Amino acid sequence: MTTTIAIALFEGVTALDALGPYQVLVEVAGTEIVFVAEGAGPVSDSQGRLTIQAHAAFAEVPEPDVILVPGGLVTVAMARARNHPIIDWIAAAHPTTTWTTSVCTGSHLLGAAGVLEGREATGHWYLRQDLGQFGATPVDRRVVFDGKVVTAAGVSAGIDMALALAARLSSDDTARSIQLGMEYDPAPPFRCGHPAVAPPEIVAGLSAGFAAAIERG
Amino acid sequence: MTTTIAIALFEGVTALDALGPYQVLVEVAGTEIVFVAEGAGPVSDSQGRLTIQAHAAFAEVPEPDVILVPGGLVTVAMARARNHPIIDWIAAAHPTTTWTTSVCTGSHLLGAAGVLEGREATGHWYLRQDLGQFGATPVDRRVVFDGKVVTAAGVSAGIDMALALAARLSSDDTARSIQLGMEYDPAPPFRCGHPAVAPPEIVAGLSAGFAAAIERG
Repeated sequence: MTTTIAIALFEGVTALDALGPYQVLVEVAGTEIVFVAEGAGPVSDSQGRLTIQAHAAFAEVPEPDVILVPGGLVTVAMARARNHPIIDWIAAAHPTTTWTTSVCTGSHLLGAAGVLEGREATGHWYLRQDLGQFGATPVDRRVVFDGKVVTAAGVSAGIDMALALAARLSSDDTARSIQLGMEYDPAPPFRCGHPAVAPPEIVAGLSAGFAAAIERG
Repeated sequence: MTTTIAIALFEGVTALDALGPYQVLVEVAGTEIVFVAEGAGPVSDSQGRLTIQAHAAFAEVPEPDVILVPGGLVTVAMARARNHPIIDWIAAAHPTTTWTTSVCTGSHLLGAAGVLEGREATGHWYLRQDLGQFGATPVDRRVVFDGKVVTAAGVSAGIDMALALAARLSSDDTARSIQLGMEYDPAPPFRCGHPAVAPPEIVAGLSAGFAAAIERG
């Protein structure tokens, strides 16, 4: 039995939200990764500089074992409008998944699909508090497991989430082997990865940039 | 003046080697990322489950300001045969770059292009010692700057390298802001990212797997 892992794509996705976890999960024996989107074919990322091929349309993968929903600032508008096919797909597929997961603001899409009601969840630090609007309790942790719903903090947190998920899908030693294979012994040259440790002016500048980008839509 | 950052792609590339740094460098103002390959069009990764579009052929981007060469086990055979167009492209472009960089076994391709002669360099832990064959001094560090040549250790180390490079291309605060934007406050669920800390049986198992994969070619 192959475990189907559906990684959702949409125009404006933050590439690493999807592809950090991809690099981890593709190494788990007995799984098959399927990139799904509105239609099979090319999907552009948030910067418009990366184009990834989706293998299949959402409708073609109605019952994946694992769903992974990446983020991107565009998800704020998508969740607000609630009219993107990814939201219907998540809502329809979630009841039969083994794991329903998100990275970064992908949790807004889980929320819009009704998946976070009554659950603890995380997401990108700038928009985490907004998860309350979906009935979730926002939690400032890098990876949050609540039953079969797993949410990760911003962008790079998807790698940590995927390793934890690989351990559940297979074993701790599988996850350890994948971590060693990708030499994931992180050593950021700066200490600025969370607003609690970043200089206030950097947090303020970035927050203003995010607000303006969301405003532009 | 736009700084052109050429990220090389080839069949069998390890996706995260290229796309971790992409996610960092695409945020540096005044730069343009160009994915280059043998030809413009789709390129498949090492697992055959991810297809990325190359924007241009190597010949169309002869003088990028920055070169980034990702790895993949396939690079061992490519470097040995020395007949892949990426090697000629690196050799021709390197003299006029501001930075020539690699991630993981991408350093084997830099080596085959003659770029590492007399330099300190790193790469994926499993194959790092082999860099000696290219006249390099292999160094067990996550990121190695030697003049304008920058090499990173395995896969995930490209993110750390790209942040250090973003600081050089722009400023420390730019790099800090990018780090915060991608919430790069890593918290791996296991402590197994380097052979010095991994259980010996995991190192042995993974090494055997790599050896067999290289043997298969």
